[in-house]
Amino acid sequence: MQSRTIRIIGLDPGLRRTGWGVVDSDGVRLIYVASGVITPATGDDLAYRLRELFEGICGVVASFKPREAAVEETFVNDNPRSTLKLGQARGTVLLAPAMSGLTIAEYTPNLIKKSVVGSGHADKTQIQAMVKFLLPRATFNSADEADALAIAITHANHRASAAVLAAHEKKVARL
Amino acid sequence: MQSRTIRIIGLDPGLRRTGWGVVDSDGVRLIYVASGVITPATGDDLAYRLRELFEGICGVVASFKPREAAVEETFVNDNPRSTLKLGQARGTVLLAPAMSGLTIAEYTPNLIKKSVVGSGHADKTQIQAMVKFLLPRATFNSADEADALAIAITHANHRASAAVLAAHEKKVARL
Repeated sequence: MQSRTIRIIGLDPGLRRTGWGVVDSDGVRLIYVASGVITPATGDDLAYRLRELFEGICGVVASFKPREAAVEETFVNDNPRSTLKLGQARGTVLLAPAMSGLTIAEYTPNLIKKSVVGSGHADKTQIQAMVKFLLPRATFNSADEADALAIAITHANHRASAAVLAAHEKKVARL
Repeated sequence: MQSRTIRIIGLDPGLRRTGWGVVDSDGVRLIYVASGVITPATGDDLAYRLRELFEGICGVVASFKPREAAVEETFVNDNPRSTLKLGQARGTVLLAPAMSGLTIAEYTPNLIKKSVVGSGHADKTQIQAMVKFLLPRATFNSADEADALAIAITHANHRASAAVLAAHEKKVARL
């Protein structure tokens, strides 16, 4: 692993299922590290389900030591009750990497689809196929894992282009 | 402090301002312990504002050692974006007492108003006046603190009536 390599965790928040995916990126190549899903016990009280979710992500962060995190910026429009529920899970998911001091970026579902598949209207199957193509070593059993890896890939692409842009601007400034 | 006395923390969640209030209850009398407001720095990223909120509540829980927590079950109906924001703060607020293993109850704003003022349509001023009447030693500077104390009072009342009911049922069963 070169010193330029950065480890990224992608997170797809949900109270029932939160997908996570870890990749290494050197700005050009992407390497699959690990992925999984955290599924808090449904019988418990909300606060204790959130605790399970929080401890699950903290555990993944402690094990794989990513330096940056990317979280899906979901926007639910159907009913306030489910938006509130998603918000509660999302707050917990954002908090976990913040507790370890990671840099945290947020991306809309549209941007993630565009970045990975090339179109903002890609479906789940297309995302899974592209994740599998970009990360041939990836083994995932669910859409949540694939989505989390897609979020990590999006962040890797965006930070790489930001770095290229910054280098270009530095070069222009020297001329 | 008698052994029957229970310490309760009431929490009124919000990303900009989260009110908290601690009371002791022996089932009959209520004693004001402390109250305050946590106001995360607005300039920071969302995840780091949530971290400030989380650490603030964890600090209060560690200082005053309540055994039970009561949180307002807010339900925002105006727009999904603000509901999502509130959910994120609420998830963080619920998580903090869960990390210390507290029993956590949730109450709707209507039930809180009914329990403290006697009417589900009470306004902020009426709540503040009743909190001041029920907790004469209380010193609070904001509606958020008064609301948090009202939530703690609601929980004290509800757990007391639940205990009376349980004792009555035990007595009936013995007859």
